[in-house]
Parts: sequence; structure tokens; C-alpha cells
Amino acid sequence: NKGNITAMRVVCAPTLILISVTICCSLTEKQLNGSSPNIIIMLMDDMGWGDLGVLGQPSKETPNLDAMAAQGMLLTNFYTANPLCSPSRAALLTGRLPVRNGFYTTNAHARNAYTPQEIVGGIPKDEILLPEMLKKNGYISKIVGKWHLGHRPQYLPLEHGFDEWFGSPNCHFGPYNISVRPNIPVYNNSEMIGRYFEDFKINLRTGESNLTLMYLMEGMDFIRRQTEAKQPFFLYWAADATHSPVYASKSFLGKSQRGRYGDAVMELDHSIGQILSLLQNLGIEKNTFVFFTSDNGAALMSGPQESGSNGPFLCGKETTFEGGMREPAIAWWPGHIKGGAVSLQPANVMDLFTTSLALAGISPPDDRMLDGLDLTPVLLNGSHQLDNRPIFFYRGNEMMAVRLGQYKAHYWTWSNSLEEFKDGVNFCPGQEVPGVTTHDQKEHTLQPLIFHLGRDPGEKYPLSVLSKEYQEVLRSVSAVVQQHRKTLAPGMPQLNMCDLAVMNWSPPGCEKLGKCLKPPKSAPWKCNWPH
Amino acid sequence: NKGNITAMRVVCAPTLILISVTICCSLTEKQLNGSSPNIIIMLMDDMGWGDLGVLGQPSKETPNLDAMAAQGMLLTNFYTANPLCSPSRAALLTGRLPVRNGFYTTNAHARNAYTPQEIVGGIPKDEILLPEMLKKNGYISKIVGKWHLGHRPQYLPLEHGFDEWFGSPNCHFGPYNISVRPNIPVYNNSEMIGRYFEDFKINLRTGESNLTLMYLMEGMDFIRRQTEAKQPFFLYWAADATHSPVYASKSFLGKSQRGRYGDAVMELDHSIGQILSLLQNLGIEKNTFVFFTSDNGAALMSGPQESGSNGPFLCGKETTFEGGMREPAIAWWPGHIKGGAVSLQPANVMDLFTTSLALAGISPPDDRMLDGLDLTPVLLNGSHQLDNRPIFFYRGNEMMAVRLGQYKAHYWTWSNSLEEFKDGVNFCPGQEVPGVTTHDQKEHTLQPLIFHLGRDPGEKYPLSVLSKEYQEVLRSVSAVVQQHRKTLAPGMPQLNMCDLAVMNWSPPGCEKLGKCLKPPKSAPWKCNWPH
Repeated sequence: NKGNITAMRVVCAPTLILISVTICCSLTEKQLNGSSPNIIIMLMDDMGWGDLGVLGQPSKETPNLDAMAAQGMLLTNFYTANPLCSPSRAALLTGRLPVRNGFYTTNAHARNAYTPQEIVGGIPKDEILLPEMLKKNGYISKIVGKWHLGHRPQYLPLEHGFDEWFGSPNCHFGPYNISVRPNIPVYNNSEMIGRYFEDFKINLRTGESNLTLMYLMEGMDFIRRQTEAKQPFFLYWAADATHSPVYASKSFLGKSQRGRYGDAVMELDHSIGQILSLLQNLGIEKNTFVFFTSDNGAALMSGPQESGSNGPFLCGKETTFEGGMREPAIAWWPGHIKGGAVSLQPANVMDLFTTSLALAGISPPDDRMLDGLDLTPVLLNGSHQLDNRPIFFYRGNEMMAVRLGQYKAHYWTWSNSLEEFKDGVNFCPGQEVPGVTTHDQKEHTLQPLIFHLGRDPGEKYPLSVLSKEYQEVLRSVSAVVQQHRKTLAPGMPQLNMCDLAVMNWSPPGCEKLGKCLKPPKSAPWKCNWPH
Repeated sequence: NKGNITAMRVVCAPTLILISVTICCSLTEKQLNGSSPNIIIMLMDDMGWGDLGVLGQPSKETPNLDAMAAQGMLLTNFYTANPLCSPSRAALLTGRLPVRNGFYTTNAHARNAYTPQEIVGGIPKDEILLPEMLKKNGYISKIVGKWHLGHRPQYLPLEHGFDEWFGSPNCHFGPYNISVRPNIPVYNNSEMIGRYFEDFKINLRTGESNLTLMYLMEGMDFIRRQTEAKQPFFLYWAADATHSPVYASKSFLGKSQRGRYGDAVMELDHSIGQILSLLQNLGIEKNTFVFFTSDNGAALMSGPQESGSNGPFLCGKETTFEGGMREPAIAWWPGHIKGGAVSLQPANVMDLFTTSLALAGISPPDDRMLDGLDLTPVLLNGSHQLDNRPIFFYRGNEMMAVRLGQYKAHYWTWSNSLEEFKDGVNFCPGQEVPGVTTHDQKEHTLQPLIFHLGRDPGEKYPLSVLSKEYQEVLRSVSAVVQQHRKTLAPGMPQLNMCDLAVMNWSPPGCEKLGKCLKPPKSAPWKCNWPH
């Protein structure tokens, strides 16, 4: 299939990347009249595709996101790069699959791995992150919220291109007994200013915490300052209220029909409305590209009070079914993106890297493979030229599945192990598709399970291998997979080693607060990744 | 719970009905300045809640319905009265539960029954249908499409208040060998004008049929004629293209990303857009109330090419889970219903009877129990006064479940029998909730399974019976159920007897066409209803 190969080449070959850049720049020049727009990426945590009113949440409690979609473009076929937080975020910021940028493990086959505080690794020095690239054109960058690309000093945001940070390096788990495990620190720029539960409260009983409000204030303050300074900016707003333990501010608690999870969604929706209003009040909305999405599917294993909805899709977080990796996505840029537009373009978080560079008029790095495409033709002109680009679904270092056009071929299927499932860990509650939601790692590499996602978005009806349709699709998909594998050079795996000594005992700044703790002796082990 | 009881009484006690009528009339007078609006009810066949873009269909292929919602009110908690076609339609037109109007069977426990052409019964003479009531205020009524309330002469639409009919009395099954089973007739008013497959083609191989186009033309012609005659009208537009065998006109075949089912949806969406445009072109949109909904959930047992989506809900057609009975619903009336409104009001098809009468300024019948409420306060003023009205979920003569507020209590659960299931008949493909999607008729009357539909729209997590929440809900629900049972007088069951002699052998008008067939000798039997 010629179309596929061409789409592949655009990302793979440096010479062709130049062509795509040329397209993007002429486009953006036209749209921008020479100036580079501000860029805001709003990344939710464990929010599901089906959590937005505009994507079918029956309670319809996201008026601000629904309005954002009505004023911008809704992308209904948008994916993350991994069904788990850290690799997904590393992919977004590098434009590269986790298997390339090192955010994966080889400790066991096809395992999701992330950055708990005992992880030794983090984002490698030789990866180039979006804020580093944006500096070339004078952007100032801030991350508000969860980082999750490693918490040891060399891995922190300000070491990787961000100018400012307010948030934490890891998930807001806890409270911990500080003698065995320190509470997660909260940073302001390069120093910690306190710890979760100790200084930044989350009431696990009531769900009350004002962290989203703090993230909102930090984000708005940054926008105001940069606007006053007439400084192009990149804001990466990575709020985490919808990750278990789910929380909301007092004024939102009990307000949703969906319980505590819904309260958190309502507060995030409200905050996003506030940010968009601020852009309009400052008069910079026509010069600010905003993209909303989530890091992986809803964490169905957390139950109805602590997790969201993946709409009509199969399973959730941790899996490479649609429920694990299809994400809500809205692009907003008044005057540039047509209001009420819907794009069916298969796209993913890595495209945000390439697209942001295109918008900023910066050539992407030409010394490495990038997996992201420049979506500006889609966003600004509704182009269909990228329709046939593949989307890869990885779990650890295994390509579990690939989507090409409307078809998705599963080369491996796995929900979770029977042992864990019997212990009550269920990634697909209420769902079971025989031969698909398998509890063993089932190999289909010789004869992949193929679904037509248009007719069967829930991945319930594999095509008959005897059908002409199957044979034709297999031919196209095989060519794409072969090409992908041929050019795939895995990065050094960063998520193999764990060590209690590397936990957040004494983050920078702890001495000023009297919050330094004594680490135990280093005793690294190979991390155990059960999923 | 006082609110519930009050809500019940409004429907039950004649004196209180008068009160509700008084409310409605003062409202409608205000809105209408004295004139009665035209009424159009668009009832789809087996279309699911999740088939509309605005309700989360990922392919977003219903621009006209989405626009209709943007210009009108979307009701996300709207239900049918039964998870099967005939009883649902009988309930809509009578404002009464099937167990009251006779559209049920007592041949076996908790069975869905309908009107195949061997059915002996039909809509009883003493039921009062909406078009009969509307006549009192001078309305002319037409049904376009599927009737399904009985096909013997005394049961046909023109015997029950409709002035015109274009369509068929039964489902478009076939083709049949006419010696054993006649093909279903198509009527124009009181006489047949041909038969499916013989004269009105449906190509089962390609899915091509121009029936939706004919229904569109018939509906638009009726609207034009009544508008010219300055005649208030009621159009009941009951297209059936999304019922298996699914069909579409040539110009829509292959156009959808969702296969043939999606083609049918696209044509229906297009047709609805045409009808709304016609109203605007005729300048009568501010005097025409339009309501869009479906007769039951998507028929998941028909597979991905021939059935739709129930979004995030459990199971589908034939079941009393949300997927079987929650319906897409849009109310449209420019200048009266606020554009872009969303109502969470629990409502159902029987409310369309009472609401239509309120709009027409006609008092509902006061000699019988009605199950429909007047929704005009909700539609016109966004009132929440009816929030706590109950919704009953019946299968045959058994109240399987009841919804009250956000809670749904299942007194019986059943998907289908293990025998049928093992034969491949699956009402919940890919879904299985232990103890909920049971294959035996499981009684929970002493301790109903209770779900919170806000937190858990997919009915996957029954509340713990030990929780305070469960105990409180059970108390309110029990009072409502007790009240409901106390006042329930089942009608004479119409769907018990079958007879080959009553099939469409010689419908009125057959002699003019030379299409009369000789019926076999009457040999009635008790119909077998397996579900």
C-alpha cells in the first residue's frame, strides 16, 4: 500500500521531514503572519475518552470542554503512546515512542512501567524535549502539575528545557510513614516547597484538596506574566485530580452526579474554562494554540468512585485496547481552527511535539527518528492527507497492535494475569470478549486479530481470517509493521532498576525547610512490573 | 419520600391531572399565544443511544441530529417503555405502559412480545391513541412508516385516529415464499399498494432500498399540504431502516465508516435534516414541535453490520438494562425550546402522549391511568420539579426494574436463557457483569440490585446492601413500587395468541392489485416468546 509507506517515510527519513516542515511553515506563516503563537497543552491524568459531555458522558457535566470543542476542533481518533502515565508523557514531550526514548522496561515481556519514587531512571540527557526546542524561537516554558519523567535531580523539568515548574515529580500517592517512604515533594521551580499530605493536603476520606485550584492559579499567573512581557510561551498544564486518589476543592465536592470522580472532572472543566476566558480577556486567544487531552484511558480498576469512562471502548488504562489508549482531544485556536470542526484523523500525543514545532516555526530535530507528525494541515485546513498514517500500540517493548485507517490489528492481546485478575485487579470490568481480553499474553503475530474500528469501535468482532477484507488489510498492515520494525532502534531502557535509596528523601531545597530525610543504603533491584 | 408520591399522583389521580393540565395550558398559552403547534414525532427503529455524534458515536456521522440538538434540547435520560418494538410504540401512542394497554403476554414469565404477522391481537378498541385525542383540537394526523400495533383490519392506523398512513404494519422481514408466508404489505392509507420484496424492493445482499427516501417524501408532502391548508398536524414519522435487515438508498450505501448500519443512520440523519429545513423554509418552525427518539436499544444480537451502539450502557434490545431502554432524544422547537439545552430529566415515550396533548391544549383522558407526564415545564422552562418521577422497566408483565432519581433498582435480572445463549443469541456481546447479566431469570425482589446511574451508568457495580446509601434508596424505591403495584390494573393481554390464518394474506386493497392470497384454516396456538 503506497499511501502507508509514504506516511511512514514522512516521519522516518530526514529528507522527507524537511518536506513536511516546508509544508508546515508555509501554512503557519500564512496563518500567523510571521508571529509564533503561544502553546498550551492541557494533559489530564487517567481521564477517559467518555468523560466529556461532547463525547457522550450521559451526565453532560463538562460545559467548558464542550464549548471548547464547539469553538475548536474535536479529534475523535486521538491516541496516547502508551496506556500508562510516564511513558505517555515522555512520548508527548519528545515526539518519540517510549521504546525509542527509553521509557520502557525489558525486565519482563510486554510490561507497562512508570516512575514510582523508587525508580532509578528518568528521561535520558540525549532526548530533546519540546521546551528545549521551543527555546530556539524565544519561548518561555512552564510545567504546572505532574512531571513523571524521573525525580532524581538530573531528570527534573528545569534540567530539560522548562523555565518554570509548579508541581510534583510523581503521583500524589500517600500518606507515607516517612521512616520507610517519604511523602512526594511539591516543587516550585528547582526546589521543593513542601510535601503532599504534610504541607499540601489531600483528605483521603472526603476527597478534599485545593491542588487543582493552585494549578489553575499558577497557570493563569504564568500566562499573565508572559503576556505582559510580550513573550511567546509554552504552558504544559498537567493537572492530576482525576488520578486516584481523586480529589476536588471544597466548592466542587458533592456537586457532580458522578460522585467524587465527577467532582474532579467538574473542577478541571471549570479551570479550563477559566484559562480560555483569561486568554480572551487578555486578547491573546487568536495567538494561543490550546490542546486538551489525557495521558491514558480511564483507570477502570479503581472502581466507579475513583475512575472515569472510556465510552464505547474496550477495557481501560494498562491495556492496548481502545479504552486504554484512545483519548479525548480538542484543539482550540480562534481565528485559525474552525469552530465546531470534527476530525477523524488518527493522531497521537507525539504529534503534539511536531505540531508545536511547526506552529513555532522551528525545524524538528533531524538526527533522530520522530514518531509525531505535523498536524497543522489537519487542524488548520481539515486536510485528509495523513488519514492512512499508522498508530502503534505498545506495552513495554512489545508492539501489541497497530491501527491503519479504520483497521486495528492486534499482534498480542493481554488484559492482565489470571493471578492478578483472581485477586480482584480488573482492567476490563463488566467486559469480556473471548479470545481478545485474554488473561495470558496471547500471541497472534502469524495471524493478527483484526477489527474494523468504524463498524466495531468496541473491538468485539474480529474479522474472519478467511475474508477477502482480512487478507487485504493484513497485506497493508504487514508492510507498515515491517517498515516500522526495520527502522526501530530501541533506546536504553530507563525503567528497569529500582532502589529505595533514590526515593524523595532529600530533594533540592529540603534543607531550607528542614525536610531532608536520610536515605537508606543503596540496594538496587530489578523492578517488578506485573502488568 | 413525599416527592415521589406526589409525582406518582400527578399521573394517577384525575383531580391532580387537572392541576397538571392547568400548569401546562397556562405555559403553552404563554408560549403559543393561543395557537396549537404542529407536532412531529420521529421514532427510529432499534437505533441506540450511542448512535448519535452528540451522544458519543466516535465516527460523528449525524451532523443533522447534532445540529438539531444544538438548536434544541437533548434529553440524556430518556427511556422507552419496553425493550421491544410493538409494546414501545403502543406505549408512545397511548401514554400508558404496555401492561396497561394490553401489549404484553402472559404465556410465560417476563417475556417480551410483539406483533409478527401471525399475531392475533392488536391495539384494543378501548385504548385512546394520540391522534384520536388530537382530533379534538382539529389536528390532521399521518403515520409514515412502521405501525406495529396489529395488522388485522380493526387494528390498523386509520381505525385508531390517523387520517393518513404510508407504510407497513409489520417489520420488513422477508422475502417469504408466499405459499407458506405472505410478504408484508405496504399501505397507502386504508389499502395496500404492494408488498415488500415483490413491489417495494430491499436488496438483502447489497442493502439497497429506497424506502427511507419514500418515507421522507411522504412526510414532506404531508407537511406541505397541511401547511398550505393552514391545518394543525401531527406527523408520526416511524422510519425503520436501522432495523435488521438494515437498508439505505443507493446514494448512501458505502458512505459511512460504520458499514451498512451507519449508511442507514446517515440517510435517516439526512432525512431529518431535510424535514427540519422544510419547516424552516415553510416558515412554520416556530409553530412545530419536533421530537426525535427510538423505540428500543440497539439490537446488539444482530452483529456489527446490522446493529448500532448503546454507548456506555449495558446490553441492548430485549433487556431491561440501560442499553435496552435508554434512548437518544431531542426536542426541537425554535423560539420555544432554548438551543443547546441539555435536560437530565428522567422521561419516557409515554410522556410524549401527555406532552403533545398539553401542547395542543387538550385535556388528557380522565377515565384511565396514564403513565406519561407533561414535560412542557422541563422543555420550555428547564424545570426540575419532575426529577424524582419513577421510570419503570417491564419485560412482559413483570416489573424488572425501576429508576428513581439517579438510582435504578433491579427486582429481576435476565439477559436470555442459557440455551439460546449457547445457540449464539447474545443480547450483551462482549459484556458480562456477574450476578447482573444473568442467564436465568433471577429474582431480587427481597433485596433488589441497586445501581447509581450517575457514578455507574454501565450498571456494573451494585451498591453494597450493607451501605446506608442502599438502605435509604431501598426505602424510597419500595414506597414507589408499592404505590405502583397498588394502582396497577393490567389490561387484557393482546400478545398471547398466534395463528397462521391471520397473516397478511389478503389485506384490504389486495383485490385491486391481484395480490390476495388464500389463508390457511385457522389454527390458533399460544405464541412462543423465548425472550
